[in-house]
Amino acid sequence: MPGANGYSILFEPVKIGPVTARNRFYQVPHCNGMGHVRPQAEAAMRGMKAEGGWAVVSTQETEIHPTSDLGPYAENRLWDEHDIPALRLMTEKVHQHGALAAIQLAHNGHHATNHLTRAPVLGPCDGPIDTVFPKQARAMDKEDIRNLRLWHRAAARRAKEAGFDIVYIYAGHQMTLAHHFLLPQFNGRSDEYGGSLENRVRLTRELLEETREELDGHCAVALRFAVDQMKGADGMQAQEEGRAVVEMLAELPDLWDVNVADWSNDSQTTRFQPQDGFQIPYVEFVKQVTSKPVVGVGRFTSPDLMTSLVSKGVLDLIGAARPSIADPFLPKKIEEGRIEEIRECIGCNICVSADNLGVPIRCTQNPTMGEEWRRGWHPEKIAPKRNETNALVIGSGPAGLECALQLSNRGYDVTLAEAAPEFGGRALRESRLSGLAAWKRVADNRLWQLQQRANVQMFTDSPMTAAEVADLEIPNVFAATGSRWLRDGSGRSSHAPLPVEGLPVFTPDDIMAGELPPADGPVLIYDDDQAYIAGVIAHHLAAAGRQVILATPGAVVSAFTELTLEQARVQTSLIEAGVEIIPLHLLQSADAGGATLGCAYTGRPRAVPCASLLMVTARQRDAALYEELKANHAHRFTTLELIGDAASPGLIADAVYAGHMAARNFERDPAAADADWFRRELISLNGMGGS
Amino acid sequence: MPGANGYSILFEPVKIGPVTARNRFYQVPHCNGMGHVRPQAEAAMRGMKAEGGWAVVSTQETEIHPTSDLGPYAENRLWDEHDIPALRLMTEKVHQHGALAAIQLAHNGHHATNHLTRAPVLGPCDGPIDTVFPKQARAMDKEDIRNLRLWHRAAARRAKEAGFDIVYIYAGHQMTLAHHFLLPQFNGRSDEYGGSLENRVRLTRELLEETREELDGHCAVALRFAVDQMKGADGMQAQEEGRAVVEMLAELPDLWDVNVADWSNDSQTTRFQPQDGFQIPYVEFVKQVTSKPVVGVGRFTSPDLMTSLVSKGVLDLIGAARPSIADPFLPKKIEEGRIEEIRECIGCNICVSADNLGVPIRCTQNPTMGEEWRRGWHPEKIAPKRNETNALVIGSGPAGLECALQLSNRGYDVTLAEAAPEFGGRALRESRLSGLAAWKRVADNRLWQLQQRANVQMFTDSPMTAAEVADLEIPNVFAATGSRWLRDGSGRSSHAPLPVEGLPVFTPDDIMAGELPPADGPVLIYDDDQAYIAGVIAHHLAAAGRQVILATPGAVVSAFTELTLEQARVQTSLIEAGVEIIPLHLLQSADAGGATLGCAYTGRPRAVPCASLLMVTARQRDAALYEELKANHAHRFTTLELIGDAASPGLIADAVYAGHMAARNFERDPAAADADWFRRELISLNGMGGS
Repeated sequence: MPGANGYSILFEPVKIGPVTARNRFYQVPHCNGMGHVRPQAEAAMRGMKAEGGWAVVSTQETEIHPTSDLGPYAENRLWDEHDIPALRLMTEKVHQHGALAAIQLAHNGHHATNHLTRAPVLGPCDGPIDTVFPKQARAMDKEDIRNLRLWHRAAARRAKEAGFDIVYIYAGHQMTLAHHFLLPQFNGRSDEYGGSLENRVRLTRELLEETREELDGHCAVALRFAVDQMKGADGMQAQEEGRAVVEMLAELPDLWDVNVADWSNDSQTTRFQPQDGFQIPYVEFVKQVTSKPVVGVGRFTSPDLMTSLVSKGVLDLIGAARPSIADPFLPKKIEEGRIEEIRECIGCNICVSADNLGVPIRCTQNPTMGEEWRRGWHPEKIAPKRNETNALVIGSGPAGLECALQLSNRGYDVTLAEAAPEFGGRALRESRLSGLAAWKRVADNRLWQLQQRANVQMFTDSPMTAAEVADLEIPNVFAATGSRWLRDGSGRSSHAPLPVEGLPVFTPDDIMAGELPPADGPVLIYDDDQAYIAGVIAHHLAAAGRQVILATPGAVVSAFTELTLEQARVQTSLIEAGVEIIPLHLLQSADAGGATLGCAYTGRPRAVPCASLLMVTARQRDAALYEELKANHAHRFTTLELIGDAASPGLIADAVYAGHMAARNFERDPAAADADWFRRELISLNGMGGS
Repeated sequence: MPGANGYSILFEPVKIGPVTARNRFYQVPHCNGMGHVRPQAEAAMRGMKAEGGWAVVSTQETEIHPTSDLGPYAENRLWDEHDIPALRLMTEKVHQHGALAAIQLAHNGHHATNHLTRAPVLGPCDGPIDTVFPKQARAMDKEDIRNLRLWHRAAARRAKEAGFDIVYIYAGHQMTLAHHFLLPQFNGRSDEYGGSLENRVRLTRELLEETREELDGHCAVALRFAVDQMKGADGMQAQEEGRAVVEMLAELPDLWDVNVADWSNDSQTTRFQPQDGFQIPYVEFVKQVTSKPVVGVGRFTSPDLMTSLVSKGVLDLIGAARPSIADPFLPKKIEEGRIEEIRECIGCNICVSADNLGVPIRCTQNPTMGEEWRRGWHPEKIAPKRNETNALVIGSGPAGLECALQLSNRGYDVTLAEAAPEFGGRALRESRLSGLAAWKRVADNRLWQLQQRANVQMFTDSPMTAAEVADLEIPNVFAATGSRWLRDGSGRSSHAPLPVEGLPVFTPDDIMAGELPPADGPVLIYDDDQAYIAGVIAHHLAAAGRQVILATPGAVVSAFTELTLEQARVQTSLIEAGVEIIPLHLLQSADAGGATLGCAYTGRPRAVPCASLLMVTARQRDAALYEELKANHAHRFTTLELIGDAASPGLIADAVYAGHMAARNFERDPAAADADWFRRELISLNGMGGS
């Protein structure tokens, strides 16, 4: 394989039943917040993966029936023939670029809520649904099971009609009936579908056999199976029943797609699982048991690791969800020897958070993710410059770096000025905290590329006054000057500063700059932000030997991290690190004796002795330079734009996105740029007539 | 007004600027989980209100621009001309039945998340958005304010084009920029839009003036304004700035729609606010200040109260959201003197919960709500019987009563058998608990109607064996036998029973039957259900003098009640009643010494001394009679169906819905009945071409 630089094994074709993957890069099913709600967006996004070299591109889980209704979440749907045209959009896009299209059929059993359809919830046994809600599943009787099999068979037929090449049976993530029946935790049946493993595996076996029969050699049949629940002896284990299941069904599917359950274990963040390939110890047995091709995942971005896994016979196909999101062109870049250009997944799960919010997928590393249809953004292509020739970007945080990189890609001469001694801004600062080291990749990837460019000049230690900026005579200025954490206690809960005096007060910026609170007494972290940084810092300070108390108006620590599947790990790790957690309390005041908190419900005061205070409330935009340029020097500039946290403090993902957009929209017709905000998918008003 | 029985004043027309409402019944804007996601469903639902006699039928809040994106919630949208056809569906349906259509335009400022559009969030000042998420709003500059005014003007123009008769400026619920600018809590500006009330009112005034100018006498202009935040001196008060705002803008709108903020105050449940008309003390000043018509709300269902309010000059128009949901035909029923037939809102906020879940509205009292388009259900019409003549309904809970009522409506001879001494089942039992008295209306309304029917026979104290049922020789049987709370500790957190012995164990059923735990020590309520009943019972037992501890795996008490806007009130009231709350803990075991809880994160044990235990975990379906009938007597029946909690334990709303559906589907072609589950609105695949 020319150009594959020793990675040619990754570009060998792999036969999967009746179809053949052109190489070993396999985008496993992953959620994306588009689905049946945004089918055009999903088709464009999946097509981009195919263009980027993935040999197989899968849907996310696809509801097969109204009794498996995950609404309002935006999964795929294949309830009946009305859903075929939307899915065909995707298979056509994927086929256009020479890839195979796979579909993950799912009946979610009691993981479904059926809030939209109001249908009864089905499960192996009676009991509460998976979500906290006063609704219970009904134990499926024999007729229910027969119906389920018919629904699955019909969905497989429709999948074929929609153009899919690979059809999944999904027994993973503790999210589907096939999996629920397999696990004693959920399956307490006493009939031939419960009890022994042979009985518990029956449903999956029937679904496999019937799907195969229905597809009749036109499509491959894949089984997605979680070999281990990562609960030790309290759950299914890879070396026990997990292996036995694979042995029992070994040759029945055309492909084994294996991982661990639940979702928070499968999609672990770098914060709690820094190791790529962390699932290998669980799944490496599978190839010893089956002759069928095996795909596995584990946030793979290193072609060396991938090559080694294939060479050693651990995997046949390199599965990826998040790495394919961060870089849809990962296979092409490896094939073409452009390894350094790979935008490595930082494992932050912002992609997951979007699905959990029911909105289109986004990615910290890849600002074009989710914008393929809406904004027509391509991760590797950008329009060339028009009339202007040069630009100044002030600030090298996520927004500044991405803006500079894309301006350079467009062909402008770019000057990048950073006030600090190192490039990277917030991406660098936050990566110094406990658990966030991988976040530095946001800066590293961009810095490496910028350093290769003849049209880029980069300066550290270069704080600038407005007059200095004006004197540079660069007509186009992008101010990406970031934001700083407030020290005065104002934020979400109180718009006014809080009465605090007589004790040292720190902010996250102090800690990121290397400071530590005094060791002579507890530090009280007040987390009014409730996102992630207070939890990270609590861990950081506990690891540095400080006695830490974390108080928050939230009911749990870092409530936002529920969206990234991390919350349980955050709070568990803090408890285990000895951090005292005081939820549901607001900071009222503090003095030399300590802090006074107030109950979030009643306002009742509670005294908490502490020696210092760390405020995590809100951020102040650092827009002073921009404001002065605008006020006093505007006539010197063709473009003067404030971007990133300096304009709107948000996630790193938001800053990268803002930097990217500014570069894309530079020299663009403002009306056309504005119109992009309005682009959306609309409901057909034609009954159920579809488009 | 013939037939209006002394309520003729309610049927007088009211002039609202250039348009005239045919009577005084005014459906104020309310969310419904349909909106731009389900426009056909919303049009049918709003049309039903018009058919039921409401003179004005409003949309919910309507996003006017991508910077006011509430996704994934299903509000209305009028971003640009592409949204007009969907809204025109609604105005046509409303006009068909002689009502006026109103639209509530909204820019939600920092209450919007813009998660879908990823647009910057705008607010009067810099600061965190209203939702817990790491994103901040940017203080609007003068250009932003000018743009906002242009967007609002353009939206008003499009509203007119879509056929609306009344266009709203929305300054309420702390959810819109107009309101945020009015409130010092959010508005800390130092320019002409901040500081004095005159300045803070400026934006609302401009929007009013410009909307009026834009509509140019073709539509009325309404102002929805929250006169009081119900925070005492910490917020706007009706007798202070609230009144001053009305004085300043008195004659500018054509209609004043006044209420209180925030939403949880405006839409209080009967559990915490049993009094209809509770908002009157706040809004009654308004008519003294303006000559324009005034509409107010307060869960009005009594025509006597309505008549009194109009007669006394407190209101010109009787506003309703929830009462119009529970009974879309409320005006017609008053007009025709059918007062007893009104399905009174029970104030449970299940309607609100659906919007908060992003799924179509539903109602405990009115099972047809939200099903007007999807299932073609009409609240007052049902198909007549076909071949069968009689039916037996076993159980008179919500499912049985509704099923019996609708079967009677269809013309069948109905026998209703209740095992207990009183009709009502769960609706009756739960209504005996502290705060839930109004829930009895679910039974009362149906019982009253059933008692009028010649074709209905009703029996209490009639437990039946399978043989007795079979011997009745009624060929159609609906078993609505309900469910009972489990005593063994199994449920959401543990599928297996828990090791408990040596202390008395109660369930909610015991308490509803009038039992009380012993008074010689604390009772530990274990709330693994996390819905509402444990919180209700905790209050009930505390009121009965018991020392109560409530432990739950949830982070807050009755987490489900966040969806009904009650959670803060639930937890506050329990704290104030002296209930000890232990969140984030699971019950591990209990014995004579008390209970052992385990931390939800670490499993670490915690001993909690108590004298008794009250298990609130899950419910067991009471399906034994049905199972025996099916096993041994099936040949005797044409129809044998299990419905309600006995089939799928859920909300009372679900049971009513199931009972209704069973009656509708009786003698219907099964394939047609099945097809209803699949009916949904689909995305157009035609770019932004719409249908």
